Amino acid sequence: MMKVAIVGASGYTALELIKLLLNHPQVEIAALTTRQEGSPTIETVHPSLAGRLNLPCENLTPAQVASRASFLFTALPHVAAMAVVPDLLAHRCRVIDLSADYRFRDAAVYEKWYGHSHTDAARLAKTVYGLPELFADKIPRADLIANPGCYASTSILGLAPFLCNRLIEPRDIIIDAKSGVTGAGRTPKLQILYGECNESLAAYSVGTHRHEPEIDQVLSHASEQTVETTFTPHLVPMDRGILCTMYARPLRSMTQADALQTMRTFYEGKPFVQVVDHLPATKDVAQTNYCHMTARVTHGRLIVISVTDNLIKGASGVAVQNFNLMNGFPETMGLPR
Amino acid sequence: MMKVAIVGASGYTALELIKLLLNHPQVEIAALTTRQEGSPTIETVHPSLAGRLNLPCENLTPAQVASRASFLFTALPHVAAMAVVPDLLAHRCRVIDLSADYRFRDAAVYEKWYGHSHTDAARLAKTVYGLPELFADKIPRADLIANPGCYASTSILGLAPFLCNRLIEPRDIIIDAKSGVTGAGRTPKLQILYGECNESLAAYSVGTHRHEPEIDQVLSHASEQTVETTFTPHLVPMDRGILCTMYARPLRSMTQADALQTMRTFYEGKPFVQVVDHLPATKDVAQTNYCHMTARVTHGRLIVISVTDNLIKGASGVAVQNFNLMNGFPETMGLPR
Amino acid sequence: MMKVAIVGASGYTALELIKLLLNHPQVEIAALTTRQEGSPTIETVHPSLAGRLNLPCENLTPAQVASRASFLFTALPHVAAMAVVPDLLAHRCRVIDLSADYRFRDAAVYEKWYGHSHTDAARLAKTVYGLPELFADKIPRADLIANPGCYASTSILGLAPFLCNRLIEPRDIIIDAKSGVTGAGRTPKLQILYGECNESLAAYSVGTHRHEPEIDQVLSHASEQTVETTFTPHLVPMDRGILCTMYARPLRSMTQADALQTMRTFYEGKPFVQVVDHLPATKDVAQTNYCHMTARVTHGRLIVISVTDNLIKGASGVAVQNFNLMNGFPETMGLPR
Amino acid sequence: MMKVAIVGASGYTALELIKLLLNHPQVEIAALTTRQEGSPTIETVHPSLAGRLNLPCENLTPAQVASRASFLFTALPHVAAMAVVPDLLAHRCRVIDLSADYRFRDAAVYEKWYGHSHTDAARLAKTVYGLPELFADKIPRADLIANPGCYASTSILGLAPFLCNRLIEPRDIIIDAKSGVTGAGRTPKLQILYGECNESLAAYSVGTHRHEPEIDQVLSHASEQTVETTFTPHLVPMDRGILCTMYARPLRSMTQADALQTMRTFYEGKPFVQVVDHLPATKDVAQTNYCHMTARVTHGRLIVISVTDNLIKGASGVAVQNFNLMNGFPETMGLPR
Repeated sequence: MMKVAIVGASGYTALELIKLLLNHPQVEIAALTTRQEGSPTIETVHPSLAGRLNLPCENLTPAQVASRASFLFTALPHVAAMAVVPDLLAHRCRVIDLSADYRFRDAAVYEKWYGHSHTDAARLAKTVYGLPELFADKIPRADLIANPGCYASTSILGLAPFLCNRLIEPRDIIIDAKSGVTGAGRTPKLQILYGECNESLAAYSVGTHRHEPEIDQVLSHASEQTVETTFTPHLVPMDRGILCTMYARPLRSMTQADALQTMRTFYEGKPFVQVVDHLPATKDVAQTNYCHMTARVTHGRLIVISVTDNLIKGASGVAVQNFNLMNGFPETMGLPR
Repeated sequence: MMKVAIVGASGYTALELIKLLLNHPQVEIAALTTRQEGSPTIETVHPSLAGRLNLPCENLTPAQVASRASFLFTALPHVAAMAVVPDLLAHRCRVIDLSADYRFRDAAVYEKWYGHSHTDAARLAKTVYGLPELFADKIPRADLIANPGCYASTSILGLAPFLCNRLIEPRDIIIDAKSGVTGAGRTPKLQILYGECNESLAAYSVGTHRHEPEIDQVLSHASEQTVETTFTPHLVPMDRGILCTMYARPLRSMTQADALQTMRTFYEGKPFVQVVDHLPATKDVAQTNYCHMTARVTHGRLIVISVTDNLIKGASGVAVQNFNLMNGFPETMGLPR
Repeated sequence: MMKVAIVGASGYTALELIKLLLNHPQVEIAALTTRQEGSPTIETVHPSLAGRLNLPCENLTPAQVASRASFLFTALPHVAAMAVVPDLLAHRCRVIDLSADYRFRDAAVYEKWYGHSHTDAARLAKTVYGLPELFADKIPRADLIANPGCYASTSILGLAPFLCNRLIEPRDIIIDAKSGVTGAGRTPKLQILYGECNESLAAYSVGTHRHEPEIDQVLSHASEQTVETTFTPHLVPMDRGILCTMYARPLRSMTQADALQTMRTFYEGKPFVQVVDHLPATKDVAQTNYCHMTARVTHGRLIVISVTDNLIKGASGVAVQNFNLMNGFPETMGLPR
Repeated sequence: MMKVAIVGASGYTALELIKLLLNHPQVEIAALTTRQEGSPTIETVHPSLAGRLNLPCENLTPAQVASRASFLFTALPHVAAMAVVPDLLAHRCRVIDLSADYRFRDAAVYEKWYGHSHTDAARLAKTVYGLPELFADKIPRADLIANPGCYASTSILGLAPFLCNRLIEPRDIIIDAKSGVTGAGRTPKLQILYGECNESLAAYSVGTHRHEPEIDQVLSHASEQTVETTFTPHLVPMDRGILCTMYARPLRSMTQADALQTMRTFYEGKPFVQVVDHLPATKDVAQTNYCHMTARVTHGRLIVISVTDNLIKGASGVAVQNFNLMNGFPETMGLPR
């Protein structure tokens, strides 16, 4: 059994991660941290864990965490993550960081979009971006994984087959993305009150969302060309789920059958991507680590639609998938079939 | 046109009130107040009012408000209301207070349940409780109306026909009440985040909810006997609507037909109460000032079910109904048919 | 008072229309029809109308309807509408048809997209498309109005200012549209069960939705050029509301301020269109006849976002607006401010 | 690996059962049946199973099913179940029946409440009611288990500690029950359309719900006295979850601490019941086989609140729990921790 700790256990992502790890046959959850005072039990923070995990959420230093566990998941807000990750690594822990702090190769991009200077910039170039469908070769040996953003992985998975095969124009791509409300976190603020979000739909951060440069960076890197997307996120009145509707220009004639075949070939052998003929719904993948995707060709445009559960394939599930790869376990271990 | 002001314009109740008053043929909204800094326009606070009302929300003193309007709706939290109402009345304004501050005749009850000493206790005994179906005779001449709590009016309307006619045991009454989330206000806190409430149902404040003594007081007063209810509220994942399922013991043999007839006789001529044969849904009364109710008799128990829209019949709609009565307008004026 | 009838009173659109007409000062609802047996009261069909409207839903012939009312709203499915409209007109009634049967000028387009031959094709060219913001000059004298589709009017309103002013490329337009579930009607089928739609989001009818040719026809007509859009609808877990996110290519340099000014100038004096600076939410216009819209310019693209309530501005509210224009009433009469 | 089949695979309960069994280490799903024509793949019926289970849904006779699997779950409507269960048992299969057909010991009660004569009445008295927390001694050797109703198990679990210990009046019990919409099945009908249920709450089947006699029978049997409850179900706008608020009269003085201790003692060692101090929410147990419960004492009444996921602990999860006990597997095997 491998002892793991979750640094920052009070959010929705951490809750999902705990639930997954409780069912992982090779994991023992050894510590949970929070910056709240008083070491509340985890069941106080997340009542759904009553009787399932009997651990306090403690305000621990990196050294204390490292003394309890050798593998860490950091589920902190950005900036907070890079304040502890170097220490954790220095204590010879391996880390999967679920924040945005290590997702960019270039500190300047991080600084522009996140508005903070990066305090651990030297580590960026060697950090592996934890999207196993694209980077499974680099993940096993990494000590630090930057776990992808939820919108980013859903978008990248849908577009990669076409960009890596140079089948679409790389600078004429629209990503119209829609997410359930848990994607906005668990910190009380007006915009995510029930009375505001329920029975309502709106776009937000048009042209300014931080997952846009992440998508562009990863797709450019993976396809070895400059990719520029227009990314428009929307908040949808549901707990979880992301659906990305993506519009691209084929570089040469493409049928729907061609598009589906391109996706199937690209993801052959990948256990968590399902290319489907029908139009997938977010509910089809809710509570799972699957990404369902399909394609249509109409009006001379390729339309790719991909769906994930933002808390699982978009966050905690892919973290477990990365954890499995880093430790030589089967990629699917502990993740519901 | 009567000039009115809304003191405390940033909550859900105030928003509904503004929407109703905008469509009232005898009203001009002359001022809106808030304790926020900077006099934001009302459309900044409530985007749904864009282009419909062009007024700032100002941080005004009671004297300033009274110089702009002669009729005031106070939509402030409890304690904050009683800090301004005496001043407003002293400026010869008439006031409908939507808070709990003037709902109790006995300051000791207020102090026990609300945990604050009452700073305007002398006024309590002469304040009229604004439930027009029971107190229409006293409302027209009042200068201060205590607008009822949403759970309270929904419960009282369902039980009054049976208690006032002495048909049920007054101390063996269970009110199992269910409310949409807007009833909990618009101030950000964890319990009313979308991710917490959505797809979830829970009881809260069992045995300790502040509408319980309000219900008991008003029903005791109206029926001239000591009424004691057991009140259990639940939070339901929907924006608006209250449904009260009430269980009582008939004092003598009663059929379903008897029960329905009792209700119909009691509410004859009351425009906003509809006694229906079917089991009413909260959606049937959403966005309206109606209360639908029905009754069943089973296992020797009377079951009364009543539904309202908590923001309208439970708050702002009944406030307009009171406003109409206070000013000699038709009771239904400005309220959607 | 004008006597009106609603032909086909059992759906969601008819319910909204009844609620609006009940509050219209110049209207008396004189008859309601249904193809159901047994003349159920309207309150049986729509419990929310209990005590508000005491009329049966009758299975009436066009002649019978015409004997009761001189102005008719037909809220029937397509094909069923064109089976009765000619008769109703022959009885000298004026008609607003809420179906798709008279929206196309060319019967061949109707037949291609709706899969039925048109039995009243001669009337198509002279029927007026009831979007008052574009065709207010033709509506007053019309005897038959084709009320617009909900997606269509939301999309057209957002794009018209730019197309009519020749500011965007007319064949490089993507409309990513999202609708609440009531848009899919009230006939029981698997896809609109609560358990299927709730907590789920999916695209549907990609490249095949019938509002796409309607949008193209009306925008081509209004802007006097060939407009071709790519239209992708999605079903969102909420009752009502449409949000269209539209992506276009400016023909020349355009700033966000330019775009907003173009919209404001175009809709000056139009009471139900509000151009806003912020990103509008469907909830902002729920239960109203307003359309809120805004624009952004990013990555060399114009993004227009417009929102409506699909049952009101997208159906019954605009029908009342058309009714007002046809009868010389103020355009806003009976529609909540 | 044990070969199992699911007879009637198209509903929500069957879907949950398939998902659970896919993750059960001792199970191979060998056959799925449906009465639909054409042997659709399971992924056509339940798109969420795309790539997870590659089996057709076939229209098989009992003999054909029995040739493929030795353990069967029948997830058919009532009446349909008793038409096949005798045959399946005759083929030496063991069966867990998720319908109501074998839940009553007395055919007359079944016939009164379900309106059908029972065609296999002789088997009723020897069928075991599959609530493991009460009947774990009888389940292991049974060949046929009647899987409990969802409301029934949630109610019974909450009340059993008090009735079995003779601490409350057995004929003065109110169960105010609330359920998510999936409890009403997956067959299209008006009442469970999204547009009807969403944003709405209503009671239904007051005094006539079929789980009431089931609750009374099982609690009477378990506590060896005549128990009579008043059961009022409500439909809540959420996918899944049941919350029962139960009101009883203590036979002698009881504190909240007493009540909680009674529950904890009663369920000691039961892995899926958690007695909690706080007021539990349905979301706390969503997607799990847990039942959370608590108690309050107020106004001389005991209030017990219990929550389950109606599709899991209320149906498919408890079926797997029964399956484990019948086969000598650990009770928790295959059920998420």
